[in-house]
Amino acid sequence: MKNPSLTRKSIVQVKGSKVREINDVLAIEEPLSISLSILKTDPPVYNKSISITMRTPGDDVNLALGFLYTEGIIQTMDQVKSVETADNAVEVFLHNDHGIDLPKLDRHFYTTSSCGVCGKTSIDQLKTARHIHVPKRNVSIAAAVLKSLPDQLRSQQSLFDQTGGIHAAALFSEHGKLLSVHEDVGRHNALDKLIGSALQAKKLPLADCILLLSGRASFELIQKASMAGIQIVAAVGAPSSLAVDLAMDMDISLVGFLNGHRFNIYTHKDSITTLQS
Amino acid sequence: MKNPSLTRKSIVQVKGSKVREINDVLAIEEPLSISLSILKTDPPVYNKSISITMRTPGDDVNLALGFLYTEGIIQTMDQVKSVETADNAVEVFLHNDHGIDLPKLDRHFYTTSSCGVCGKTSIDQLKTARHIHVPKRNVSIAAAVLKSLPDQLRSQQSLFDQTGGIHAAALFSEHGKLLSVHEDVGRHNALDKLIGSALQAKKLPLADCILLLSGRASFELIQKASMAGIQIVAAVGAPSSLAVDLAMDMDISLVGFLNGHRFNIYTHKDSITTLQS
Repeated sequence: MKNPSLTRKSIVQVKGSKVREINDVLAIEEPLSISLSILKTDPPVYNKSISITMRTPGDDVNLALGFLYTEGIIQTMDQVKSVETADNAVEVFLHNDHGIDLPKLDRHFYTTSSCGVCGKTSIDQLKTARHIHVPKRNVSIAAAVLKSLPDQLRSQQSLFDQTGGIHAAALFSEHGKLLSVHEDVGRHNALDKLIGSALQAKKLPLADCILLLSGRASFELIQKASMAGIQIVAAVGAPSSLAVDLAMDMDISLVGFLNGHRFNIYTHKDSITTLQS
Repeated sequence: MKNPSLTRKSIVQVKGSKVREINDVLAIEEPLSISLSILKTDPPVYNKSISITMRTPGDDVNLALGFLYTEGIIQTMDQVKSVETADNAVEVFLHNDHGIDLPKLDRHFYTTSSCGVCGKTSIDQLKTARHIHVPKRNVSIAAAVLKSLPDQLRSQQSLFDQTGGIHAAALFSEHGKLLSVHEDVGRHNALDKLIGSALQAKKLPLADCILLLSGRASFELIQKASMAGIQIVAAVGAPSSLAVDLAMDMDISLVGFLNGHRFNIYTHKDSITTLQS
């Protein structure tokens, strides 16, 4: 069966003095339109295009639901009547507008590959979005287990193996058991897919889990993790200053530069245990 | 003097069994508001918030001008009356609305760290944006010179050295001379800074130059390169499928996985010369 996330292109590969034409595998990047329809009495139907995101196809329903959740538009699957998909489009139907912030929806939402603060109409709104979720600390992970996570992720990251061009978000238990992996050309899409999948499985909040990010940790990834109630976030790459500030505020333990030998703890170090083992 | 792009945080570094508190350097990520004011007779002043982008501070005027240029809002510095900067805000004043697509501005623009198709209100608009610029092929680079570019970039990439968390966009001559480097937590911001700098120096279009990207090549980076008239784009990382499609359409030679020993040519291979030397 054709993988909807991958495509093949004829390319020229140059290695030292060797030049050859090969058929290479690339990650697909295509726009996805996410729209919302709400059954109301007055007017009868509210319908709105919420976002166009540049994403890797293949997990569109999870991506759309995760995006609506991490943007604070929906809170549970009970609000969702049905989801319809077409080529590069997902439409989510809600039973009614209870619990939906329609004025917020009436501001436009746009999003693309690895953004996520899109749709915030002012810097103040961006900052106040921090205060939606304040989970309580009750999870920890041993340093040795933490260091084992990137190798586990790589062994499961199928698209990356083939293309070298894909970000992953992975969920692990406190004991280092890999629970799920989602991939995308955009970092924030990979995380939205992971959170959308957990939403559909009614597993939110993810307070007992550790989130591993294959790249860097930016503000909006920490914001999404916070919305999902995740309390430990580990990144293979560097965090930004605002990611560290938000993790501090949101009571999230943030780890960066994680590999099999080392890591840095940027915030709330107490949830990483037995550091000197 | 304090570097506006960097900050220091106290962190815990774990290396093997060694645990120590250190003062680490992080790349700053903060929101920048970009707004536009146009002096008109009716109404007297048009003022609009165009974008909020998560960026690394320190090169805000170039970023704002480059963004307005690559979004197709301004074409030359002659349109710009003045630029005012405040804390995390840039306001660009235009002489008049000649050549400005005001209905396009009246659709909202939003952008964030590494996005750039923001502000496109439909997938069709996203696709038609391809057809703004069709430069004519007249530049080439020798394979051996091409392979020397990443090492040259790394020797100049000051923020990355200190933080490990920064993307770069660099411009080289056909002979491999480094012309400029711009850095940001967001890939598309680094490229907007580079293009804004060239706009201010009246050096657009950059038809004689080679663009090097420190990471992956996505659709929107190729779109921005195309707007600036760049005809050879080389990325250290992988391209996406849509980046390859757009480069093909726009007559751009796209190289990926570039390092000192190898590279792949995805489109228009004829502008990379002496492959077997």
